[in-house]
Amino acid sequence: MVSETELIARYGETDQMGIVHHSNYPIWFEAGRTSFFIKLNIPYSKIEEAGFLLPLTSMRCSFKKPARYEDEIIIRTSIIHFSGVRLDFKYLVLLKVDQQLIAEGETAHAWTDLNLKPVNLKRKYPELYALLIKAFEKTS
Amino acid sequence: MVSETELIARYGETDQMGIVHHSNYPIWFEAGRTSFFIKLNIPYSKIEEAGFLLPLTSMRCSFKKPARYEDEIIIRTSIIHFSGVRLDFKYLVLLKVDQQLIAEGETAHAWTDLNLKPVNLKRKYPELYALLIKAFEKTS
Amino acid sequence: MVSETELIARYGETDQMGIVHHSNYPIWFEAGRTSFFIKLNIPYSKIEEAGFLLPLTSMRCSFKKPARYEDEIIIRTSIIHFSGVRLDFKYLVLLKVDQQLIAEGETAHAWTDLNLKPVNLKRKYPELYALLIKAFEKTS
Amino acid sequence: MVSETELIARYGETDQMGIVHHSNYPIWFEAGRTSFFIKLNIPYSKIEEAGFLLPLTSMRCSFKKPARYEDEIIIRTSIIHFSGVRLDFKYLVLLKVDQQLIAEGETAHAWTDLNLKPVNLKRKYPELYALLIKAFEKTS
Repeated sequence: MVSETELIARYGETDQMGIVHHSNYPIWFEAGRTSFFIKLNIPYSKIEEAGFLLPLTSMRCSFKKPARYEDEIIIRTSIIHFSGVRLDFKYLVLLKVDQQLIAEGETAHAWTDLNLKPVNLKRKYPELYALLIKAFEKTS
Repeated sequence: MVSETELIARYGETDQMGIVHHSNYPIWFEAGRTSFFIKLNIPYSKIEEAGFLLPLTSMRCSFKKPARYEDEIIIRTSIIHFSGVRLDFKYLVLLKVDQQLIAEGETAHAWTDLNLKPVNLKRKYPELYALLIKAFEKTS
Repeated sequence: MVSETELIARYGETDQMGIVHHSNYPIWFEAGRTSFFIKLNIPYSKIEEAGFLLPLTSMRCSFKKPARYEDEIIIRTSIIHFSGVRLDFKYLVLLKVDQQLIAEGETAHAWTDLNLKPVNLKRKYPELYALLIKAFEKTS
Repeated sequence: MVSETELIARYGETDQMGIVHHSNYPIWFEAGRTSFFIKLNIPYSKIEEAGFLLPLTSMRCSFKKPARYEDEIIIRTSIIHFSGVRLDFKYLVLLKVDQQLIAEGETAHAWTDLNLKPVNLKRKYPELYALLIKAFEKTS
């Protein structure tokens, strides 16, 4: 399963080099995760309401070409690793007009309770666990 | 009472005009409030731990001269209105090197509980109320 | 003329109060202006390429209700003042689901050249001046 | 050579998990680079004025412990790779109070001209090349 998110590069996202500042890519990745969970039929806000958080343990991003103000951007989001305790996503950031690759990256996450203590999703939230396993299998 | 906060304009705060993007001024004002409460001897984090929030009801900012990357900036923060339920701050944003005015602005806030319901600080948190009254009187 | 911009509140736009941080509203207003110029048939990026900038001289925002992560937001943008040298916008920020007003605000701008020196658009860029006058008249 | 940068976590940098949002770490790293170049006696703004840019080609960050609002933070910045065309930095993010490691990361950069075309610093800007070589050698 791969979700697609569309957004338009904002003026405030540019820096004085005239390109989108690199700190916005983690935010775009996050918009990708938001869409991914909606496509999964379980919005991330509902997961948090159920008492689960998904903080990052690491992230990385490679920048291929600069994005610029008003560029129409597509984020392709998929799961690259899933266990009951961890969840890793991969992202492709493309220019919509010609599907050129702008950047690609990954984020690694741990499932935790509201106090940021690790939890095993398989035991604590089996419905979500099952949805994620299915989404992961559809990708690979 | 007036607090002073020093900061250096960050690269990521610039935009493609080559100046600090206007959306950063509310964040600089907030850094000014953080310093103000520390000078008051009651860090804002402690106020939140005590169960009180101070969300904005409005803000305004006038931009006099652009700030640029690496500029050393001073924020002068003071209270311009205080009642048991409302608290308004005024900010002067200066270039440190020559004390030139970069921007000035105001934010208006309501005291609320953790559910964002308005509270009367005078009754609910009299110690903080007394400190704020004193700080307000020292200004005017 | 009024443009409508849709966006989804991002996780990174929230703060520890659990609501969208107020510094994002100027960025949402800016997304509103981007749409407005596109609706006007002259993308703002093209205006900058033609040698004109539109920095803010002031902004204000009133917050009516908090926005939250994943909220679908509509920004309604219109011109409230226009002369050859100044351009002021007004914004309504609505929750899409029930059209509730979240916030409303204004930004005031000056037309400048690439060195941030004021220019008279009527003389320097009459085609854009004509489009803006028409858009302003359609609003009022 | 290692530079140290101090900053205070801002309220607007937190998210609804109550911790500093991960997208701020690249911005903190950048504040680290700003200090590093100042310690090198050649502010980054001067390098840009001389016609050179240092865009990122990649970044990564590992998150060890959450940072929270008002935390006093130290960024330790050093060079881990340098050639005439590339420059890579490493960052340690520490809590000032107890020197606990909050996060660590790296950014990789290419030297370019103002049009983002790669340049060889050794030939184009030998003085800066010499300073960077010396700083790199002091680290390793």
